[in-house]
Amino acid sequence: MPYELFYWPGIQGRGEFVRLALEEAGADYIDVARGAESDGRGVPALLALLEGDGLTTPPFAPPILRDGTIVIAQTANILLYLGSRLGLAPQDEAGRLWTHQIQLTITDLVAESYHTHHPIDEDLYFHEQKPAALHRAGVFRRTRLPKFLGWFERVLTNNPAGDTQLVGGATTYADLSLFQVLEGLSYAFPMATAGVLATLPRVAALRAAVARRPRIKSYLESDRRIPFNETGIFRRYPELDG
Amino acid sequence: MPYELFYWPGIQGRGEFVRLALEEAGADYIDVARGAESDGRGVPALLALLEGDGLTTPPFAPPILRDGTIVIAQTANILLYLGSRLGLAPQDEAGRLWTHQIQLTITDLVAESYHTHHPIDEDLYFHEQKPAALHRAGVFRRTRLPKFLGWFERVLTNNPAGDTQLVGGATTYADLSLFQVLEGLSYAFPMATAGVLATLPRVAALRAAVARRPRIKSYLESDRRIPFNETGIFRRYPELDG
Repeated sequence: MPYELFYWPGIQGRGEFVRLALEEAGADYIDVARGAESDGRGVPALLALLEGDGLTTPPFAPPILRDGTIVIAQTANILLYLGSRLGLAPQDEAGRLWTHQIQLTITDLVAESYHTHHPIDEDLYFHEQKPAALHRAGVFRRTRLPKFLGWFERVLTNNPAGDTQLVGGATTYADLSLFQVLEGLSYAFPMATAGVLATLPRVAALRAAVARRPRIKSYLESDRRIPFNETGIFRRYPELDG
Repeated sequence: MPYELFYWPGIQGRGEFVRLALEEAGADYIDVARGAESDGRGVPALLALLEGDGLTTPPFAPPILRDGTIVIAQTANILLYLGSRLGLAPQDEAGRLWTHQIQLTITDLVAESYHTHHPIDEDLYFHEQKPAALHRAGVFRRTRLPKFLGWFERVLTNNPAGDTQLVGGATTYADLSLFQVLEGLSYAFPMATAGVLATLPRVAALRAAVARRPRIKSYLESDRRIPFNETGIFRRYPELDG
């Protein structure tokens, strides 16, 4: 039975971290909300799962993964579940927790990236909170972006199995997620991200290596990959890039 | 060998979610950064762990738990590790993931609580970003707080084993963490939180029940419990309470 992913259609968003893991593993999955309503899919199917009564594990927000009777939400939690099943995480407890710890730090970076364009109100447009966004984005570019990306460089440097992947000697979902964040940051802050990456050779090399993986490359070239746009997490507002 | 918790002294912060689990379980632990430098503890010991070279699992930020040779960061990840060891999480995978999913949603609520007083710059004082904070706090009180707390009420309502705990038939670390968030929200937003809790009987009852648990009660009355203050996550700025 295929995995079922429920996420807002039209954006990569947090669902993309799950998609990349499923694609890399060649897993059979349905991107439910991008399907046709006449097939019982589409946004109504997502809303039914999100708002349905009686579910003993109700999700707070998408992405949501359904695997038979199991319904899981929270991006990092979904990847924790999928990691061992898809061969994208170590089997031992310490390795699994470390991979998950990296993913949770990526989660924090993703949230901070979103706040650069919507620092005070999700329900207002960007132009309605632009002064606050300019301030927040400046702090992000000068302080937070170098701190986060520098930490990933340190993790790569310290990996005893080699500096071409974050955990152990094989690709994990954390590598795929770091790639995705770097793609998003390079879309939203092309100058600032290029400037930081120029000082972090291992992080830059990991990004390029993931893009070359055959299944990832094929996915990125397919129409399953939604282009970045100004309704997602990573948005290109040139004034926020300094 | 006792667990070693590394967290900033002087605030409850994110470390408090770990402390409550250790206290409820009666676990032997050392709150390292609150110890004396002459004993090799204090903030220098925290900084040494945080900034030390060569650690294969370098933490990005506190809290950090050390258990022998294992070093774990990210609050929810620490609780995932401790949950099964302290008898504060189900043993089966689905139950463990569900408990963790609730914890990750609490993590999101904690981050949003912090942003109410520091929406655009962690390095400025509250009074230097007050207009943005007033806006952000208004959105939080009107929209986000009821949405989050309403979700916990739904989780309690839908628990087939009973509505007095979030997961299954026994207390988990998620119950302790929900208690802690409610304490913090009631400190920071006494009027807004009381207003929402008046409509959520199960959430309000869980909070009271956790406070009555013998080890938690004893801990809260001890000097190990740091009082809420205006350098932590939850700060009382009356103008943010509406």
